[in-house]
Amino acid sequence: MILDHINDIAAICAGHGIKTAIISPGSRSAALTLAFVRHPDLETRIISDERSAAFVAMGIAQQQQRPVALVCTSGSAAFNYAPAVAEAYFQEIPLLVLTADRPPEWINQYDGQTIRQENIYGRHVKASYRYPDNPSHEDIEWHGNRLINEALLQCTAEPKGPVHINVPVREPFYPEADEKTFFRKVRLIQRPSPEANLSDESWQSLVATWRQSGRRLIIGGQQTGTRELIEAMQSFLAHHYCPVISDIISNLQGIDGAILHQDAFLSVENDEAHKDLVPDLLITLGKSNISKNLKRFIRKHKPAHHWHIQPHERYQDTFQSLTQVIPLEPAAFFTAFEEKLNGEPVSPGYLTAWSARDSEVAVKNQEFFKTQPFGEFEAVSQVMSVLPNNSQLHLANSMSVRYANFIGLRNRSDVTVYCNRGTSGIDGSNSTAVGAALAQDQLVTLITGDLAFFYDRNAFWHKYPLSNLRIILLNNHAGGIFRMIKGPSDQPELAEYFETEQSLSAENTARDFGMIYHKVNDRPGLKKALTDFFTPSSSAKILEIESDSAQNTAIFKAYKNS
Amino acid sequence: MILDHINDIAAICAGHGIKTAIISPGSRSAALTLAFVRHPDLETRIISDERSAAFVAMGIAQQQQRPVALVCTSGSAAFNYAPAVAEAYFQEIPLLVLTADRPPEWINQYDGQTIRQENIYGRHVKASYRYPDNPSHEDIEWHGNRLINEALLQCTAEPKGPVHINVPVREPFYPEADEKTFFRKVRLIQRPSPEANLSDESWQSLVATWRQSGRRLIIGGQQTGTRELIEAMQSFLAHHYCPVISDIISNLQGIDGAILHQDAFLSVENDEAHKDLVPDLLITLGKSNISKNLKRFIRKHKPAHHWHIQPHERYQDTFQSLTQVIPLEPAAFFTAFEEKLNGEPVSPGYLTAWSARDSEVAVKNQEFFKTQPFGEFEAVSQVMSVLPNNSQLHLANSMSVRYANFIGLRNRSDVTVYCNRGTSGIDGSNSTAVGAALAQDQLVTLITGDLAFFYDRNAFWHKYPLSNLRIILLNNHAGGIFRMIKGPSDQPELAEYFETEQSLSAENTARDFGMIYHKVNDRPGLKKALTDFFTPSSSAKILEIESDSAQNTAIFKAYKNS
Repeated sequence: MILDHINDIAAICAGHGIKTAIISPGSRSAALTLAFVRHPDLETRIISDERSAAFVAMGIAQQQQRPVALVCTSGSAAFNYAPAVAEAYFQEIPLLVLTADRPPEWINQYDGQTIRQENIYGRHVKASYRYPDNPSHEDIEWHGNRLINEALLQCTAEPKGPVHINVPVREPFYPEADEKTFFRKVRLIQRPSPEANLSDESWQSLVATWRQSGRRLIIGGQQTGTRELIEAMQSFLAHHYCPVISDIISNLQGIDGAILHQDAFLSVENDEAHKDLVPDLLITLGKSNISKNLKRFIRKHKPAHHWHIQPHERYQDTFQSLTQVIPLEPAAFFTAFEEKLNGEPVSPGYLTAWSARDSEVAVKNQEFFKTQPFGEFEAVSQVMSVLPNNSQLHLANSMSVRYANFIGLRNRSDVTVYCNRGTSGIDGSNSTAVGAALAQDQLVTLITGDLAFFYDRNAFWHKYPLSNLRIILLNNHAGGIFRMIKGPSDQPELAEYFETEQSLSAENTARDFGMIYHKVNDRPGLKKALTDFFTPSSSAKILEIESDSAQNTAIFKAYKNS
Repeated sequence: MILDHINDIAAICAGHGIKTAIISPGSRSAALTLAFVRHPDLETRIISDERSAAFVAMGIAQQQQRPVALVCTSGSAAFNYAPAVAEAYFQEIPLLVLTADRPPEWINQYDGQTIRQENIYGRHVKASYRYPDNPSHEDIEWHGNRLINEALLQCTAEPKGPVHINVPVREPFYPEADEKTFFRKVRLIQRPSPEANLSDESWQSLVATWRQSGRRLIIGGQQTGTRELIEAMQSFLAHHYCPVISDIISNLQGIDGAILHQDAFLSVENDEAHKDLVPDLLITLGKSNISKNLKRFIRKHKPAHHWHIQPHERYQDTFQSLTQVIPLEPAAFFTAFEEKLNGEPVSPGYLTAWSARDSEVAVKNQEFFKTQPFGEFEAVSQVMSVLPNNSQLHLANSMSVRYANFIGLRNRSDVTVYCNRGTSGIDGSNSTAVGAALAQDQLVTLITGDLAFFYDRNAFWHKYPLSNLRIILLNNHAGGIFRMIKGPSDQPELAEYFETEQSLSAENTARDFGMIYHKVNDRPGLKKALTDFFTPSSSAKILEIESDSAQNTAIFKAYKNS
């Protein structure tokens, strides 16, 4: 069959454990679509807007912890994937991006839906391939098989990430009307993840540095926080007290005594008062941090030693103080390091210094909102206090995730927090949450602002039920963050050119997509709405919380000064 | 002032005649935003969704016939411009894409909104630059000035197109609260367009080929069709009868006797009957053609000579028969060539052969719809017959432009037709029409399908009035084209995976954006709705024409068989 070489792609994907493909409609891509739809081991969903489709795929891949295949037609469709591809690259989420294309001789010839698709994602994919368009020789068949295998191994090797395969297709694109699709046996090239260790010499050097460092601090960056990691860290910390800073997106909130409020108590004004918090040794794991004040504080007071624990070589120097990359999984590191240290006399003073500040903020957070008019900051706090057991919290950029980081999730190891902090864009927050809701059964709560929400409305433009999705829409009819920061709030162009005032409410959107919609704009309204917001329903629910941008700013300012 | 080097960018743009900047909100880009907003000679508009913003900018640039500046913040914002950048590249529309960025040392350091922006548009821009981030030396100031000048000259040299400047910005991004923005005098490097001619020898060779070719055919590809071109061609044709094929997007419909219905009468089945239409010499101008049957016909019956007239060197071989690129503006070519030919005996036989077929279809088009139930094809025909004087017709991909090409616009040189046939995507049709409506006062009628319309709803998500915009939405609740073509219509996956059935109506969208909305689904309803659809109003109007996808397919099939 002429399309055998296309069907092989789906078969190799299935062989490597891919479960799901997200497809956008197209004719050039028809053979790919049919291969994925007809393969018995693959689930497929169709989503028309490629920008949303790619973020949905990313959301699913994040949940499944395995690559999701994306299939689109030729032309600008491929470019609409780009924002999600970039996010996946920096969040290290595996995606197999399959873009159908015309054969190379037809590029630039004024034929429809033809752009220059090769290497279209630039340096935002781990690798980029061109699938053979004409498997007329056995070496070409070998090439096709080899490169799909290679692409999938690239996708899943650390750091995981998106890989692009451009697939030129000649007509006919479709099998005959009554033709059965047959999948040939395909060769798989497999590769288990290596188990790394360090030499005794390396361990001894780490032990020596640890022992000579009086003040040791652990900071978690973005990660999903497995049970294995939490257990390894708890065990380590039981013998080696040290503060663990759990940024809202680090998912380390389940660790006893984790520091949550660093962004609230560290500030330029109080730097001198916090000199006792400066570490000698900093240990970091995970990716980015939300806490701007924390980053600033450490960059200003650089520790003598900074170890970053991650299994691969693509390191970042976020705190401008990195001295050691430790090429291990964090859980493996803490387990092994505990054994190497083999006990030591401990003094809890440094931990206490951090904990005391953290507790003060926790107390303040309990009282603060009572002194203020109602606003979105309080709304976030209320919602976070009633998140259902074993659920997910998705936070959009920018203010939603910042508010949440000030509030923190104490002792909620049953809640996993997600946020697109790979590129920190607002462009795919809805779609990523939709992907999470489609991929598993936990309730998914998305807290988002109006700009992020309306930007990505096409996340809902498909026929798949989203009964486990709950959206908290903080609608201040503008990009409220611009009023919060000093630079733009000083300019006469603030409202028009920075906040970008907009008048939409989600009511019509909810109607379009059959969602249960409710709007509140005060404290009693919110309290009442939250009583049954998380109860089961047959469709997604949107709770729109309307507030005033200027008042939100005043409240946040008061909080920072309190 | 620390932001002088950023203000210079706006000043150089204004100096080169840029009128408009489209801005999306951001903090990293604040200095750029303020420079464009505060420059006295520049008009600015703010649009939140960068994907739509870039297509709006492209629509404006297309009207103004000069570059429009785009300003966005760092991160994935830049990637959301990409679909429009690709469209502009292939449609040869000048855009100056300014993306704010962090300084290079902060790339890949897990700081927010940071991707790898350099060269992000790959081979879809004419050039890509990095603006200096730290103008601390006079050579660096010279470099900054030089590259903005160079970028603008690149943008406007033939073939025109998008140019990207990545602009790293260090804090502070904002001037002080009460600081006046001062624009320094900037050096401009200017370059008039060259006036090309051919050598006598070249002309003589063309004259000789023309004379030895009995059957000469002119085909217009996509262009906006200036009055100068139409006049030059009319004058030429008055002495040298030959058929001129006016694809709907070639805007040559004002030429007396232009052939409009080539896509209807040329078909695989009738190839032999049309042997008398095969040219010896083909002359083409403009870019792509909609007529698939025409392309197929010429590719099958290759002329001995094919001249393509265009002033620059980036040629395409659409008809697989190109032998001569003539590096002149088409108007200049026809004027000069008329003089060189200096009269000749003419025989109108070949023209008559084409005209006879064209007239047959014109007659059929008058009668056909009376024999059929109501559907979207007839609706397009009705709308095209009542387009207001001196207005614009924008056609979305895919079925809208195809229907329109079958109908044709006879003797409507007062209507200019636009369609995004650079990449033939559905992604920016609304936004391009919005750009056209914002840029000038003519009434803009957009005929679009439901997938294209809902895909790009964010085109309307801004505060600018669109009273001169009229949208005809052909809503068959699916990508109807997939039912029209044989391959997908034979597959059991047709409705779900190719047509992508969707249930939205535009009613809620119209409500969201304050548009006047009306829906019809039959002949009398349409007739009535069109009586006042084009009358002046204070806001945009949407006329939603609902029809059944299967019935539309049956009608189009009947048309082709009639």
